Amino acid sequence: MRALVTGGAGFIGSTLVGALIARGDEVLVVDDLSAGKRENLDPAARLIEADIRDTGRMAVIAAEFRPDAVYHLAAQIDVRTSMADPLHDASVNVLGTLSVLQAARDAGARAVVVCSTGGAIYGDGAPLPTTEDEPPEPESPYGLGKLAAERYTRFFVRAHGLPALVLRFANVYGPRQHPAGGAGVVSLFCDRARTGGRPTVFGDGGQTRDFLYVGDVARAALASADRLAAGELAGEVFNVGTGTESTITELAATIGRVAGLDADAFAPEFEAARPGELRRSCLDPSRGLAALGLPAPTTLAVGLAATWTWHTRRS
Amino acid sequence: MRALVTGGAGFIGSTLVGALIARGDEVLVVDDLSAGKRENLDPAARLIEADIRDTGRMAVIAAEFRPDAVYHLAAQIDVRTSMADPLHDASVNVLGTLSVLQAARDAGARAVVVCSTGGAIYGDGAPLPTTEDEPPEPESPYGLGKLAAERYTRFFVRAHGLPALVLRFANVYGPRQHPAGGAGVVSLFCDRARTGGRPTVFGDGGQTRDFLYVGDVARAALASADRLAAGELAGEVFNVGTGTESTITELAATIGRVAGLDADAFAPEFEAARPGELRRSCLDPSRGLAALGLPAPTTLAVGLAATWTWHTRRS
Ligand SMILES: NC(=O)c1ccc[n+]([C@@H]2O[C@H](COP(=O)([O-])OP(=O)(O)OC[C@H]3O[C@@H](n4cnc5c(N)ncnc54)[C@H](O)[C@@H]3O)[C@@H](O)[C@H]2O)c1
Ligand SMILES: NC(=O)c1ccc[n+]([C@@H]2O[C@H](COP(=O)([O-])OP(=O)(O)OC[C@H]3O[C@@H](n4cnc5c(N)ncnc54)[C@H](O)[C@@H]3O)[C@@H](O)[C@H]2O)c1
Repeated sequence: MRALVTGGAGFIGSTLVGALIARGDEVLVVDDLSAGKRENLDPAARLIEADIRDTGRMAVIAAEFRPDAVYHLAAQIDVRTSMADPLHDASVNVLGTLSVLQAARDAGARAVVVCSTGGAIYGDGAPLPTTEDEPPEPESPYGLGKLAAERYTRFFVRAHGLPALVLRFANVYGPRQHPAGGAGVVSLFCDRARTGGRPTVFGDGGQTRDFLYVGDVARAALASADRLAAGELAGEVFNVGTGTESTITELAATIGRVAGLDADAFAPEFEAARPGELRRSCLDPSRGLAALGLPAPTTLAVGLAATWTWHTRRS
Repeated sequence: MRALVTGGAGFIGSTLVGALIARGDEVLVVDDLSAGKRENLDPAARLIEADIRDTGRMAVIAAEFRPDAVYHLAAQIDVRTSMADPLHDASVNVLGTLSVLQAARDAGARAVVVCSTGGAIYGDGAPLPTTEDEPPEPESPYGLGKLAAERYTRFFVRAHGLPALVLRFANVYGPRQHPAGGAGVVSLFCDRARTGGRPTVFGDGGQTRDFLYVGDVARAALASADRLAAGELAGEVFNVGTGTESTITELAATIGRVAGLDADAFAPEFEAARPGELRRSCLDPSRGLAALGLPAPTTLAVGLAATWTWHTRRS
C-alpha cells in the first residue's frame, strides 16, 4: 500500500513509519518539522516538509502520491501551549485536520486514520476505565480541538463516504518521545535516571494515567487502515489504551527498577501539584481490541524496558 | 455602555445595533461586509471594516475602544456553504470566535455574548421542544463549528473568568434578512408575495421550524449583556426561541394572509425535498426567558406583519 503519514517525523509518527516500511509499504511523510525531526525517520521514507494547513499544497501532494491510506498524526500536542494559544492549537488541529480530510477525499484514499486523544477528551468525572460511550468533556483547548476534529471526521464519513475512523490514544510513551506529549513524564523520568537525577513528581504522586507503549499505537493504526480499506469500520471511534491505571509514583519506581537503580537513589522529589491536571485517567480499550483484532497491550515493564534501552543508547 | 458588535452590519446585528443606539449605548461595529451592508447600519454606529480572523487587528480595535460589552455575531451563516467548504466555515466561525474571545478578554470586557444556533446544533432525534440539556449532535459543519465555538467560549469562562455566555437562536426572521440564513425562507416567501409569485415548498411542507422574530433576539442579547456585566450567568447556554413549532405550509399561509393575498393565489408550489434537512425543529426557551427576565416571544402573526411592512417598503 501507499501510505501518507502526516506528522510522520514525530514520536508516534516515526514509529508508525518504521512499521509501515517493515511490512513493505511505500511511505510519504508530510511534516513541517516544527516538533518532528528528519533523523527520526526511516531512510526508506520520503519526507515533504510542508504545513498541513496549506490546503493547496496538501491537495497537490495527495493527488500526486495517490495514497491508499492516510494516517493523520500531525498536530500541536502540548496541552499547555493550547491553553496559552488556543487559536494556534485550533488552527493546526482543527483546520489542519480539515485540510487533510479534504486532500484524502479528493485523492480517493481508501483508508484514513485520524489520531485523537483519550487522555484529554474525557472529563474528570468519567467512570474508569472509560469507554467510548462516555460523552467527551474536554477541559483544555487541546482536547476541544481534537474533539472538533473527530466530529469533522465523522461528517466526512457521513457526507462524503470517506473511509475514516478515529483512534483516541491514552498516554503514549516509548523511544523518541519528546517531553511535551501525553506521557512526556516517561521521557523525563528516563532522562533523570540516565543522568543520575531523581524524578520530580507534582502533587502526591497518586494521580494515575494509562501508559500505552508506542508500538501498540502503530499496530492499532495499521489494523485500522487495513479494515477501512476492506470496507469496514468507517465512522468508528476507538480508544487505544491498556485498561490499566498506574500512579506516577509506580511509574517512577518501575523506571528506577528497569534502569537498575536503587529505590532510594531514585526516590521522587515532590513538588506542588499543577493546577488543571486530571486526577485519574484510564481508557477501556476492549471495543477497539476486538474490532481491530489486536493482541493484549504491552505491559508497562516490557514497554519501559524498550524505552529505557533507547534512552541508554542516546548518551 | 460601550458596545462592540461583530457582524453588526448583518441581519440580526443591525437590529441589535438599532436597539443599542436606541437605549443610548455607544456602538462600534466590526464587519468585513462579506454579507452585511453598510446601509443596514444606524448612522449613529461607527463601522470598522475588518475581518475578525485578523487577531492583531481585533486586539487593537478592542484595546482602543475598550468595550463594556462584546456581542459576537460575525459568522459564516450558510449551512450549504459549510458543507461545500467546511474549512472556510471553521476558519470564520471557530478561529474567528477565538480571535474575538481573546480580544474581549484582553480589553477587559465585562460582558461577552456569543451567538450560536439552536436550529443546527441539536440532532434530528432530539425531543421537542428541545432544552439546553439535550446533548448537541450537529449534522452540518456549520453546526459543528458553532458547537466548537461554544465550547471554546466556556473554556474562556473557566480558565480566564471571561464573563461570557452563549445564546442558541432558533430560526430568526425579520426585516433586512437575506435568504441564506436560518429563516431565509421567510424572506423568500415575502419576496414572492411582493412580486406576485407563489411560495416554493421543498418536500411535503410538513417540516417544522421555530420561527423567532429578530426583535426578540436583540432583546435577549441586551438582557444577557446586562446580567453578565452585573456578575451573573457567565458560562451559561440559553436557547432563544418561541417554543412553538410551525410547518412551512403554515408559514406560507400566514405570509399570504399578512400580505392580503388570496389563499389560492398564494398556494405553494411543491418541489422535491432537499436532502439533509431536519424534519422538525423547535427550541424550549423557558430557561433563558426566566434567567434573563424576558417577556413572551413575539407571535408569528405579529412578527410577520412587521417583516412584511419592511418588504413592501423595499419595492
Ligand atoms: N503522545 C501522546 O501521548 C498522544 C496521546 C494522544 C494523542 N496523540 C496524538 O498523536 C499524534 C502524534 O503525536 P506525537 O506524540 O507523536 O507528537 P509529535 O509532536 O512528536 O508529532 C507531531 C508531528 O506533527 C508535526 N506537525 C505539527 N504541526 C504540523 C503542521 N502544521 N504541519 C505539518 N506537520 C506538523 C510535528 O513536527 C511532529 O513531527 C498527534 O495527533 C497527537 O495529538 C498523542
Ligand atoms: N439568522 C438565523 O436564523 C440565525 C440562527 C442561529 C444563529 N444565527 C447566528 O446569528 C449571527 C448573525 O447572523 P445573521 O443571520 O444576522 O447573518 P448575517 O450574514 O446577516 O450576519 C453576519 C455578519 O457577519 C459578517 N461577517 C462574516 N464573516 C466575517 C468576518 N470574517 N469578519 C467580520 N465580519 C464577518 C457579515 O458581513 C455579516 O454582516 C451569526 O452568528 C449566526 O450564526 C443566526
